[in-house]
Amino acid sequence: MSERERTPVTVLGLGRMGTAIAAAFVAAGHPTTVWNRTAARADALVAQGAVRARTVAEAMAAGPLVVAPLLDARSVQEAVGPAASALRGRTLVNLANCTPAQARELAAWAAGHGAAYLDGAMMALPSTVATEEGFFLYSGSRRAFDTYLPELEVMAPAHYFGTDPGAAEVHDLAVLGTGYAALTGFLHSAALLARAGTPPETLAPLAARWLTGMAAFLPELAREAGAGAYAGGVSTVDLNRAAVHALVALSEENGVPPDVHGPLKALLDRRAAEGFGEDSFSSVFELLRPRDAREP
Amino acid sequence: MSERERTPVTVLGLGRMGTAIAAAFVAAGHPTTVWNRTAARADALVAQGAVRARTVAEAMAAGPLVVAPLLDARSVQEAVGPAASALRGRTLVNLANCTPAQARELAAWAAGHGAAYLDGAMMALPSTVATEEGFFLYSGSRRAFDTYLPELEVMAPAHYFGTDPGAAEVHDLAVLGTGYAALTGFLHSAALLARAGTPPETLAPLAARWLTGMAAFLPELAREAGAGAYAGGVSTVDLNRAAVHALVALSEENGVPPDVHGPLKALLDRRAAEGFGEDSFSSVFELLRPRDAREP
Repeated sequence: MSERERTPVTVLGLGRMGTAIAAAFVAAGHPTTVWNRTAARADALVAQGAVRARTVAEAMAAGPLVVAPLLDARSVQEAVGPAASALRGRTLVNLANCTPAQARELAAWAAGHGAAYLDGAMMALPSTVATEEGFFLYSGSRRAFDTYLPELEVMAPAHYFGTDPGAAEVHDLAVLGTGYAALTGFLHSAALLARAGTPPETLAPLAARWLTGMAAFLPELAREAGAGAYAGGVSTVDLNRAAVHALVALSEENGVPPDVHGPLKALLDRRAAEGFGEDSFSSVFELLRPRDAREP
Repeated sequence: MSERERTPVTVLGLGRMGTAIAAAFVAAGHPTTVWNRTAARADALVAQGAVRARTVAEAMAAGPLVVAPLLDARSVQEAVGPAASALRGRTLVNLANCTPAQARELAAWAAGHGAAYLDGAMMALPSTVATEEGFFLYSGSRRAFDTYLPELEVMAPAHYFGTDPGAAEVHDLAVLGTGYAALTGFLHSAALLARAGTPPETLAPLAARWLTGMAAFLPELAREAGAGAYAGGVSTVDLNRAAVHALVALSEENGVPPDVHGPLKALLDRRAAEGFGEDSFSSVFELLRPRDAREP
């Protein structure tokens, strides 16, 4: 496809992610119009072939697809609000860091101005934009997602989670939650080793290798949790309960707050007390899932 | 080196891990003597070239290095206790699942019978024995570790953590803790998505990819925590605090117990309240590490 045939793309906001995104569109041969509050941020992109718009309205006039990797919901309103009349007929892809409620509000506001709306959550770093390592989550207009999937995948592999505009942010928080838990566990473990004289730098490569192994284990955990079938696993509640008890005891002995593993200890204790000690570790899911979400 | 020159190795206990370990020694050309309470477990290994001992004493008489991947501290005492006089001059590598205190007790007991003692913790699955994916942690006799490092590395890359026989188990718990936190976070996130109709199996590959990225991020976190230097990070307390607050709110909205992320929320809130909102996320380490472990 020649450059002239590719969809023109507008990028609003040239922070670290926005710059990487605009560069990816330029590199993929899309006519790319960029806007940033501080116009000089566009200099390098212009040298690569992007067009600098002086105003948001001018940027949005350049083409049907408006990608907005701005900071947060407020910065979207501040940047796009005054140019809202230019939204008509456009598809707005909001990549700002929003809560699910803010995403829903922005979707309603965009619809009120005649724009299709996609909410996107970027699971990527500037360095993993336009690679297979990053991935973006989307929700909102199904038609917009289907129409612009090739353009969206210039930025990262794209996953769609339904018409609720808040769904991408909900899924974003779920993915982030796994990571937050891991990082908290790591820092807690680093604290555990402080008195043994082992620095965090020594723990890091070992914990990283273990974590990579745990990542490979998630599909099995998910199959068990998804089916509610926990018999015959090699890693039982009782086995892991003993280790988690030892972990909490070690925290207390070392003057490290033991509450990081407190919730898991309580979940395993409860499963054991209810007679499920021989079930797979993943069966603590039964105590976490909402009561009404998988009832007959 | 011909087979005749390799150190004879004794393996006590042929569970899944013991069987994989004995097979690795046979494959590496070591004269390998095996013992298991249920003798038939050794059949396949004998076919591969291992020698079956009828008693623990006979097994330990076969060579200087005794590797014991038994179940737990009690099973070590039950198996080796009656044959304790055969320990003299041997090196006992205890790979059973022990607490640090149990490892110290076993070390004292082995010393009382004239044996050198190494405590080992296996960070591996049967399938990752003798590969670069698994790794074993050791503590206890430095001399035994140095003498038998080539044999130990037949099983897995070996890491040594000092003469305290409990240290391997302490480091084992620290590595496990990172993994437990990640798995708990994943199951919590899977529960979060239940009402949105997204099954755990859909979340798993996305969370796994994110977790692999987080694993690569641990060395940076460790450098910051190790140095106590938290300025200039791209991922601040304030930024992550907003996301963790959203995560806890989403848990509450969805009828999922919010306490999995409660400790992290409290840590971030406290750092922000103390005026460190612009510090790197990793600075929550300052609230976890023991007060006396890095004071001037």
